[in-house]
This record gives sequence, structure tokens and C-alpha cells, in this order.
Amino acid sequence: LEAQDAEGLRALVGDLHESDFGDLLEILFQEERIALFVLYGPDLDFTALTEVDETIRLAILRELPTELVVEGMRELEIDDAVYILEDLEDEEKFEILQKLPAMERAALQRSLDLPEDAAGRRMQTQFIAVPPFWTVGQTIDFMRESQDLPDTFYEIYVVDPAVRLKGSVSLDKILRTQRPKRIAEIMNPAEHAILATDTQEEAARVFTRYNLVSAAVVDAAGRMVGVITVDDIVDVLEEEADADIKALGGVKADEELSDSVWYITRSRFTWLFVNLLTAILASLVIGFFADALEQMVALAVLMPIVASMGGNAGTQTMTVAVRALGTRQLGRANAMRIVRREMIVGLLNGVAFAVVMGIIAAIWFDLPTLGPVIGLALVITLVSAALGGIVIPLLLDRFGVDPAVSSGPFVTTVTDVVGFFAFLGIASLWFGI
Amino acid sequence: LEAQDAEGLRALVGDLHESDFGDLLEILFQEERIALFVLYGPDLDFTALTEVDETIRLAILRELPTELVVEGMRELEIDDAVYILEDLEDEEKFEILQKLPAMERAALQRSLDLPEDAAGRRMQTQFIAVPPFWTVGQTIDFMRESQDLPDTFYEIYVVDPAVRLKGSVSLDKILRTQRPKRIAEIMNPAEHAILATDTQEEAARVFTRYNLVSAAVVDAAGRMVGVITVDDIVDVLEEEADADIKALGGVKADEELSDSVWYITRSRFTWLFVNLLTAILASLVIGFFADALEQMVALAVLMPIVASMGGNAGTQTMTVAVRALGTRQLGRANAMRIVRREMIVGLLNGVAFAVVMGIIAAIWFDLPTLGPVIGLALVITLVSAALGGIVIPLLLDRFGVDPAVSSGPFVTTVTDVVGFFAFLGIASLWFGI
Repeated sequence: LEAQDAEGLRALVGDLHESDFGDLLEILFQEERIALFVLYGPDLDFTALTEVDETIRLAILRELPTELVVEGMRELEIDDAVYILEDLEDEEKFEILQKLPAMERAALQRSLDLPEDAAGRRMQTQFIAVPPFWTVGQTIDFMRESQDLPDTFYEIYVVDPAVRLKGSVSLDKILRTQRPKRIAEIMNPAEHAILATDTQEEAARVFTRYNLVSAAVVDAAGRMVGVITVDDIVDVLEEEADADIKALGGVKADEELSDSVWYITRSRFTWLFVNLLTAILASLVIGFFADALEQMVALAVLMPIVASMGGNAGTQTMTVAVRALGTRQLGRANAMRIVRREMIVGLLNGVAFAVVMGIIAAIWFDLPTLGPVIGLALVITLVSAALGGIVIPLLLDRFGVDPAVSSGPFVTTVTDVVGFFAFLGIASLWFGI
Repeated sequence: LEAQDAEGLRALVGDLHESDFGDLLEILFQEERIALFVLYGPDLDFTALTEVDETIRLAILRELPTELVVEGMRELEIDDAVYILEDLEDEEKFEILQKLPAMERAALQRSLDLPEDAAGRRMQTQFIAVPPFWTVGQTIDFMRESQDLPDTFYEIYVVDPAVRLKGSVSLDKILRTQRPKRIAEIMNPAEHAILATDTQEEAARVFTRYNLVSAAVVDAAGRMVGVITVDDIVDVLEEEADADIKALGGVKADEELSDSVWYITRSRFTWLFVNLLTAILASLVIGFFADALEQMVALAVLMPIVASMGGNAGTQTMTVAVRALGTRQLGRANAMRIVRREMIVGLLNGVAFAVVMGIIAAIWFDLPTLGPVIGLALVITLVSAALGGIVIPLLLDRFGVDPAVSSGPFVTTVTDVVGFFAFLGIASLWFGI
């Protein structure tokens, strides 16, 4: 690149798969990335931009001349172009759209007008649609002669004159059927069509449930407008899992490895601040028992154990609940059964750890009566943790709040407050301090 | 079902997709499930068993007559049969395999002999392979006449006389090519073939990286032995994400909603026990400062705040690290950069919360000198949390231990011990107690 070895570089980059080219882009410095695009612009595969982090993608798009970006967008399938452009500011999008030919602009604009998580944003608008009265032979001949086919496809679609979806035929079905047979006789009814305005998550559930590789996208009137393929759905599933994992760990879903230190610091600050409020609340509970703590330092030494056990047990239950809600395994039908089960698990483990920790505490501080005090506190805390860990995600979900994002602080508050209150409260009563 | 309305039920169940039938099975009582299978056994689609929880699957298989299971297995594709049988005990598997015809037994046995997470376990062994010198026309005619085709397929494969994989042709490529063209001219070279002994995770990375819908599976000698399709890969990705989420929450990956209370209690006990040891270690640190705590109860009230902030900051960093390691975004190439970045983020947020909490503490206890003490402790704790949160997963990964499962307790130990030690230690020195 430094030597501007045009031919050598072109050969090198040209042979790369878009994913490998994307990796190359992530390793290069920003100036090198721009130089690469400017030198070989129209020859480069802009699809690689879908494989790099958002921060890098935006930086590249903003520094490249608009003409070059427009040129690159024209070569892409609609879903890739939408993915690349959607995070730009409105004016920047407008500038690029203005310079595209009318047809492509209209298709892009229609996808970009859908809500951000709409399934329609992931669709290609090129697909093969044939009338039901065609024969298999006619369909094959049509595909052999047509120049304007999608890059890859796995099904052809059957539509009526108003482009309303009637059904689909997989390519293997076409290949194993004799030429004179009519398409209408071998097509599958249009059962698993996806609405352009469905969320991407809903589309992903249909794909995984029915093991699809592609599905037709229709508008509200049942007219076919595009096709979603499984590779996009795999991306959706990965993004979803990513978002859940990060949310449970208190990290915003959009945080990427290439983000700036300053952005990450601010983004994590929010969560830590919520946690600080939770922790202060717990400390207020402790402050309430200041006298007891002054008279009996063993309580100060042991109290974090009770809170920590509660926090971990609550997190276990919450993790199971959040994941089961996310995969639709937990719903109204079985909620009560799972709540009951979690409480019994909490009770059993509470009793188990009450015995273990009761013995340890009694020996450690040479004070046998400390055993039942911490034991009882542990039972109460672990049952409350189980209850909070399952009920809080269920309630948040019921009220339309993402349980993965918001459950943590609530559950921690419950376990900390109950943990400290139960232990210090029981100790105060028992020892009369 | 109760009325044994054979015809009505057959019509009802027969029309259901395997996923819906699986859901039905999960709702029914165990006796009803068995009655359903016994009544309509051979007519039922055993694929539905791949859609239910492992506990339910095993219970059904164990109660059904072996003959019925054997009958059901014969109708299945190999990968589904392997999935259903793999969790049975060896004798139970043997009993079923014995009764299968030799060909099917051999194919099943070969898959079952592979390691549990081998990609080969997910492959179908039926596929279409043609020699490179065939024309497109010959290939299409072959598919039209052959009776023994796989249920669905997206590619045909090109092999030499020793069944060594040479390349693949997607069905759309075949459909848009003229009949006289030779397969060798339109095939893609066999670049993304998967070794039967590769892990399922490796296979999934190849699929997502190159957006595949199906890939050939070869043995060590390069001979083609089967095909993996993207629907299996979607399952692998979901299981992986599931395992990571659960591991980070301290829950074993194999825990399912239908598990018994007793199983779940024992399974979670292990993690809580590890956490108890961590908590006791932290308490030992606190016990070390018993004198200081007795003289100044404010320290006992504030100390959980420091530990809790450290724990949460450490979890944030750990979550990002574990996820980035899992998706191969974090490796030796960028590890040092990310470690440095996390430490700066920890330092910045440490300073921010030092100011906030320092002011709160000074006002709360009307003791201005408490401000710098808790502030300094927070900075030290948050930087250590960041360091622990990134270095511990990296080290575990380097030594071949799954960082999602094992990082949590180590990170918590670091943040608790450092948090209590820093705060109580600095306070002791500062106030001379």
C-alpha cells in the first residue's frame, strides 16, 4: 500500500472474501483505509463494510468522496446498502440517496423508512416471482434467459397478477420435477411469510422455528416486496445474543471493541451510577443498625457473606428467567410453575448454606448462637433472591421493558437490602442490642 | 386423547409442523405423551423429539417400546436420529442400534463414535455427488429420476472416483446454466469444507463468516462423508449463546426449564459454594481490620459500597472480554490494546465516582476527611476491577479453560478483596487506628 503497488494490491484485495477484506480494514490505520478505497474505489467490494465495526464504518463513509460511496452502493444488494447507510445522519443519507438512480433510490428509501428493527430492513428486493399457471419447464427457461437474477436464491415465489404472494417452491423441488408439471401443483402455500413491519426478532423466531433458509416479505396488503435469507437471520440472532449478554453484564448493547475510551467510560458510567444508588440504599440499611455493629464487630465481618450469597443466587435465577423470556420458553402458561420451582430451589439451597455457614460462623467467632442467626438470615435471603430473580424479569416483561437490561439493579437491591436487613435485624433481636 | 378419538387426533397431529408438535408434547403429561406415541407410533414424526427438552426426550424414549423407537428412527435423517439418541446410556443406544438395518446402523454408529461436540454429529449422510465431467443436463435428469434424494438440499457436490471432494455447485447456478455446460466449468472450488472432527463451534464460525447455507463434510483423507445445513448451525449458535449467558450468570449450561427441582438445586449449589469461599475470603480481610471497625462504625456502613462498585465494574469488563473472546474478536493481536483501554476506562470512572462518593460520604458522616479516603479506595478498586476483568478471562482462555464459566469467581474475589483491603487499609492508616 505504501509503495502504491496498484497491480499487486488489486490482485491481493480482489481475491479476498468480503469477511477477510473486512478484517483487513479493521487492522489498517484510518488513513490507509481511505487511501485503499480512493485508489481502487469502484473495484472494491463495499460489502466488506458490513463486516466491520460501526465506528470504523462511519469513519470510512464520512471521509470518502460521496461519488465513490454512491458508486459502491449501486453494486450492493439492498439489504447490505441499508445496513451500511442506516447509522449515518439524515443529511448524509440524503446526500447519497440524491445521487442514486431513481429506481435504486426508491427501493433504498422504502427500506430506510421502516422502523429501525423492522424485518424489512434486512430484505433483498430482487427475487424471482412467477405466476402459478407456469410449468416447471417455463420457469427453468425463464431463469436461464433472464439477466437480472438475484446473486443467490433458494426459492422462487408464486404470485398473482397483483403481486400478492400465493406460495413458494424450493429449487430442489423444481430440479426433481418433470418439465410439464405446473408450478401451482408443487408449490408450498405461503404460510411463513414475514410482514415488512414485523420486528427482526419475530422474523428470526419464524426462521428458527421452521428451519427456513429464505422467506418472502410481504406488505400489509399481502403483496410481495422482498426476500429475507438465513444469513441475515444468523446476524440478527448473534446481535440478539450479544445484546442479552452485554445487558446482563451492565454494558450497553452498542459497545464495540473499536469504540473510543471516552465513549465507553460514559456508557458504563450510567450503569455504575445506578449501582451506586443501589449500594447507598443498602448502606442506609446498615447504618440503621450502627449500634449493633459497634457492639459486635462479628456482624460487620459476616454481613457481606449474606448479601453476596443472596446476590449470586438472585443472579442465577434472573439469568435463567431472562434467557427463557428471550427465547419465548417462559410465558404466562408456565410462569407460576417456574416461580414455585425457583422458590423451592432457593429454600433448599438456603437451608443447605444455613447449615454450612452456621457451623463456620459459630466456630470462627466461638459463639454458638451466631450459627442460627446467620443461618436464618441466609434462608430468608436466598428465598427472597429466588423470588426477586424470577418475579422482577416477569413484571418488567409484562410492562414491555427489556428484562435483560433492567432486571439487574432491581434484583441486587432486593438481595442487598433483604440480606443486610435480615442478618442485622435478627442479630439485634436475638442478642438484644 | 382421553376419548381415544383416533381419527380426529391423527388429523390434528398429522398436520402439525414438527416444532408445533414438539410444543404439544411439552404441554402434555408424561402418560399422555406415551399414550400418543403408542397409539399412532409409526405415523408420528419423531423429528418432534428434537424440539423438546432433553429431560422430556429421555423420559419418552425410555418408556416407549424399543421396536417403536427403532421404527421412528428409520424415518429420520441421520443428524436428527443422532441428536435424539446421543444422550441415552450406552446400553440403551446399543439396544436400539441392534435392531436397525445394517446400513443405517453403520451410519448412525459412525456419527455417534465422533466426539460429542464434533461437527460430524450434525451432518446428514444423504447428499448428491456427481463427477466433474457430467453436464448440467445430465445432472438435472439424474435428479429427476433418482428416488433416493435428500429431503431438502441447496447444493450438489462434485467428487472424483474416490469420493474426494472437488467442489460444489449451488442449485441456482444449475438452474441458470444451459444444459450442455459441464459441471466442472461452473463449480466453486471446495474451499469451505468442514472436517467431520472439527468442533461444531468451528463449523459455525465458517458458516457465519462466509454466509453459507450448506457445506460439505469430509474425513481426514478428504473424502466426502456428509452435509451440514445452516438450520443445524443456527441451533449450534443458539446453544453457544445460551451456554455463555448461563455460564456468566453462574448456571450450568445444561439446565433446562423442565429439569427437576432437586437437579437444579444441586447444580446451582456448586456455584454458590464457590461463591461462599470467595465471600469468606473477603470476610477474612474485613476481620483483619476488626479494631478499626469497632472504633469507626462509618467504615462498616460504607465498605459494601466500595466492594459493590468494584464488583460491577469488574463484571462489565469481564462481560465484554468473554463475549469478544467467544466471537474471536479478541486475540493476541489486540489484547494489549484492550487491556490498556479498560484500565483507562477504570481510572476515569474511578476518579468520577471518587468525587461523587467522596462528597456524599463526607456530608453523610459529617467528616470531611472520609471523602479522600473512600475516593482513593474507589480509584484503586475500579482500576483493579478493570485489570482483573480483562486479564483473568485472557489467561483462562490461554490455558484452555472456558472463560465464560470460570472468570466470575476470580473476578469477584479480586474486586472484593481489593475493595475491602483498600478502603479499610487506607482508613486505618489515615485515621491511625
